[in-house]
Amino acid sequence: MSATWQDLAANKKQRQHAAIPKDWLITPPNNAQLDVTGIPITSGLLTPFELEITGTDDVDHLLKKLATGEWSSVDVTHAYYKRAIVAQQVANCLTEIFVERALARAAECDNYLKTQGKPMGALHGLPVSLKDQICLKGLETTMGYVSWIGDYAERDASLVIILYDAGAVPFVRTNVPQTLMWGETCNSIFGRTVNPHNRNLTCGGSSGGEGALICMKGSPLGVGSDIGGSIRVPSAFNGIYGLRPSSCRIPYEGALNSMLGQDSTPSALGPMSVSLSGVKVFMKAIIDLKPWTKDPLAIRKAWDEDSYKLKEHGGGKDLCVAIIWDNGLILPHPPIRRALEETKVALEAKGMKVIDWPGFDYEQLCAVLVDVWAAGSADDYAAVTAKTGEPVLSTMALEGEPVGEWLAPPKKGISAYALWQLQKKKSELRKAHLDLWESTRSLTGTGRPVDAIISPVVPYAATPHGKNLDLCYTAVWNALDCPACVFPVSTVNPIVDVKQPRDKFLGKSDELIYKSYDPSVYENSPIGLQLIGRTQEDEAVIGMTEIVDAALKEYRAN
Amino acid sequence: MSATWQDLAANKKQRQHAAIPKDWLITPPNNAQLDVTGIPITSGLLTPFELEITGTDDVDHLLKKLATGEWSSVDVTHAYYKRAIVAQQVANCLTEIFVERALARAAECDNYLKTQGKPMGALHGLPVSLKDQICLKGLETTMGYVSWIGDYAERDASLVIILYDAGAVPFVRTNVPQTLMWGETCNSIFGRTVNPHNRNLTCGGSSGGEGALICMKGSPLGVGSDIGGSIRVPSAFNGIYGLRPSSCRIPYEGALNSMLGQDSTPSALGPMSVSLSGVKVFMKAIIDLKPWTKDPLAIRKAWDEDSYKLKEHGGGKDLCVAIIWDNGLILPHPPIRRALEETKVALEAKGMKVIDWPGFDYEQLCAVLVDVWAAGSADDYAAVTAKTGEPVLSTMALEGEPVGEWLAPPKKGISAYALWQLQKKKSELRKAHLDLWESTRSLTGTGRPVDAIISPVVPYAATPHGKNLDLCYTAVWNALDCPACVFPVSTVNPIVDVKQPRDKFLGKSDELIYKSYDPSVYENSPIGLQLIGRTQEDEAVIGMTEIVDAALKEYRAN
Repeated sequence: MSATWQDLAANKKQRQHAAIPKDWLITPPNNAQLDVTGIPITSGLLTPFELEITGTDDVDHLLKKLATGEWSSVDVTHAYYKRAIVAQQVANCLTEIFVERALARAAECDNYLKTQGKPMGALHGLPVSLKDQICLKGLETTMGYVSWIGDYAERDASLVIILYDAGAVPFVRTNVPQTLMWGETCNSIFGRTVNPHNRNLTCGGSSGGEGALICMKGSPLGVGSDIGGSIRVPSAFNGIYGLRPSSCRIPYEGALNSMLGQDSTPSALGPMSVSLSGVKVFMKAIIDLKPWTKDPLAIRKAWDEDSYKLKEHGGGKDLCVAIIWDNGLILPHPPIRRALEETKVALEAKGMKVIDWPGFDYEQLCAVLVDVWAAGSADDYAAVTAKTGEPVLSTMALEGEPVGEWLAPPKKGISAYALWQLQKKKSELRKAHLDLWESTRSLTGTGRPVDAIISPVVPYAATPHGKNLDLCYTAVWNALDCPACVFPVSTVNPIVDVKQPRDKFLGKSDELIYKSYDPSVYENSPIGLQLIGRTQEDEAVIGMTEIVDAALKEYRAN
Repeated sequence: MSATWQDLAANKKQRQHAAIPKDWLITPPNNAQLDVTGIPITSGLLTPFELEITGTDDVDHLLKKLATGEWSSVDVTHAYYKRAIVAQQVANCLTEIFVERALARAAECDNYLKTQGKPMGALHGLPVSLKDQICLKGLETTMGYVSWIGDYAERDASLVIILYDAGAVPFVRTNVPQTLMWGETCNSIFGRTVNPHNRNLTCGGSSGGEGALICMKGSPLGVGSDIGGSIRVPSAFNGIYGLRPSSCRIPYEGALNSMLGQDSTPSALGPMSVSLSGVKVFMKAIIDLKPWTKDPLAIRKAWDEDSYKLKEHGGGKDLCVAIIWDNGLILPHPPIRRALEETKVALEAKGMKVIDWPGFDYEQLCAVLVDVWAAGSADDYAAVTAKTGEPVLSTMALEGEPVGEWLAPPKKGISAYALWQLQKKKSELRKAHLDLWESTRSLTGTGRPVDAIISPVVPYAATPHGKNLDLCYTAVWNALDCPACVFPVSTVNPIVDVKQPRDKFLGKSDELIYKSYDPSVYENSPIGLQLIGRTQEDEAVIGMTEIVDAALKEYRAN
């Protein structure tokens, strides 16, 4: 008789543990210790040099040290690997661990620099972590599915090939929820990834392993994916930077996913990083290497330096930014409201104009996208899980806790014709939103429509496990295919972020989410916001986020 | 009791006829006169000046005369309108006729030039014809459906707004087959459009009205659409130029279509013209006006002059072009083979390298695309025709003639999940084709992969009505989203293009198409070929077609 899915999962988890060098094991902190972000320093495992390397909060600084050879790639990769393994032991954020292979690649980079006298590429020697869907030749990619254990990739994903060309060192893969269609991170093989700032809270998802790992500074730069918020939610919940690029600018070819073939609103791969410089260098490095020569769906559109320098946005000198205070469905919790207010003050202090974004039917837009997924997702999940009989997860809640109501598992699928009607509706809503954006020209005083929108990522900070059930603030930008960059603003402070009395609600979800707020529960959770630009204006979104980020840093310094 | 669909169709046709100025009616030629391309000259309706204007075979020449005011837009529009009405009377190529409205717009252009001292835009004063799916405010758009008679557009399509911004004069709309999903042009309202070179032959489709009209020089520049060959087939069959651009470079928003919401392989709007200069000026004019500010699906990608100047193709100095002699499924008829051979000789005479394109599984690629359409097309057609009970056409054959076998009406639809599996397969085939193209780097001697492919458009010249049943030579490039530009090469000469004996066939379709060849039947039919480039390399495709076209003109002159 063949192995049960439980046996397969246990065996895989054992193999993962065995891949950790024994002398990198630490004494685990007490379960009561919620904030584990300091463990890499206090554990004593990392040398001062390794702490210096991994303490960097600017990827450009790292790249400079690597390109000059001042720091070897082997040293940098070794340091980050140790710190990633510490992160794994406190936040459970990894899947594939392959230390020797990564160090061999790092040595290859060092050798190249020594023999050729120049760096291999824009990401020379840099360790890069990858979400557990981006295939590396010879490794399994389970994506949280027991049924995919034992499937070893015959080739690298197109993005991996380009990362190699750019000189990067893919060094670890990171945890995800089964199917990737959740805003948290838990599966039947590797279990649950937790938030390093407060382990009672979720790290978000589906790129939650990346979020927690980068939060721990166990990786300077990682690659996530986002079809409804899966880069942005974990970036916000972990206090890091993350960009959901426009569809098809970063090559997806050769990566696994749920619902492959759903071409109407594709998932996008994108960077998550300790710094905005990491976001930028990743995007430029990948696009400069012409992903359209490897991925037939990648857009033939070179890195646009004019766009990055905000040529179409007055050179960035008089930006007019619009704030979404709420989406008409759910009022954000007090810490999110505070982050928006602080951002407004910070921008106005720099002379920028900040206006309110006009309303839109975001409920319908979000519903259309969710319905597109549900058109065939149940069939997709069933086809994958049939091999082992593993359950399709129907909740991210802790065992014994109630299941959330909003993200119910998808119903039966619909016909292709019915799907086309949804997609037609989506196009009509996109047209209406485009016209709305263009119409803001009359409100800005710059002669241009609003340059960017700043919005909550979710209406709350990182929630307790199983409670991240709203996706509308992120998913609408997927439906519109607008690039969106998350930047950290603050952390929840129960003294400041007190609960305000309310007796009128926008609906049942709004009421439930209002009631769920307890400042002490959310203590220390990072708060991030997203800056949203126009479709395929990824470079400008990065450029404008740099301005906002600098304004916030200045604001916080005063 | 409400009107029957036949009544509605007859009433619409009468209204169309009534829109023709009475003094523009000519004595129709005898039915036995097959070649009617000379009728605009022999009819005596057009003045020598009007014949000079409409005789132009270079759109740039027209635009120069218009921009300087040497020719007024009213004169030019009037001349083309008269010639279009002549074309209508011999080839039945028009749908909506609105003479006064077009002349009023032309007068507006003239007035602008006079008062502002500069042209309105890149297409200043130029009459432009539109396929009968591109909505003009206040006019009906039937797209061959009786059920859409009486639906007056509340606004212009995005492309029409941009055409106005560019200074163009939309002046007539052109006939299509019901549904647009045919390679010929016939419907229950306006009837059949015929080939002006030989009225026993089809004008092709679905942009067949455009093809016949431009062939008659009843329009210098028109807009068609292409989801499987619908710009390229009528361009080839009528001896004109036509570009199927990459998807989403020309804005589709606000145009009608079958299967709206089918986002995976969308139809593309594109230019058809008497000259390649018309193709180029249209593409540049539209893209320069930022269609992404009006159509949310339009790619944010500026006109790329470097690409047009073939920066990535050695400046066009040492092009290596690959020829598809046959697609492994159907051997082209002798005149098509001759056109390929002549093109090869013409290119080699200019120092270019010409190699054979390696084989690919084009049968599977074409089948996947046809299956994507069939996933929901029957439901789509049924939903539209339900209003009047009009029949969904199942053949383009003449009454009493046998129905073709290959383009059978679509079967029942499939599930959304099954559609995603088809689309996933399509992506895999696109990846394989991209890798194949990249691999030709080793064959060219230029250091680059093959710069462009030259291929038959269909394996025959314009067929008798009801016999254009093969779409594989065009549809595969839609499946791959490669831009493709048709250029005229020759016309069928029964003395040269003799039938060769064959007793081995690639399959049943090959045998049937071989047997259907009778040189005398195809006499005088134009022969065009297509030049194919990489996805979103539209500018380079135009630039390379210019080189090929010039080489062929030189070849023919010698």
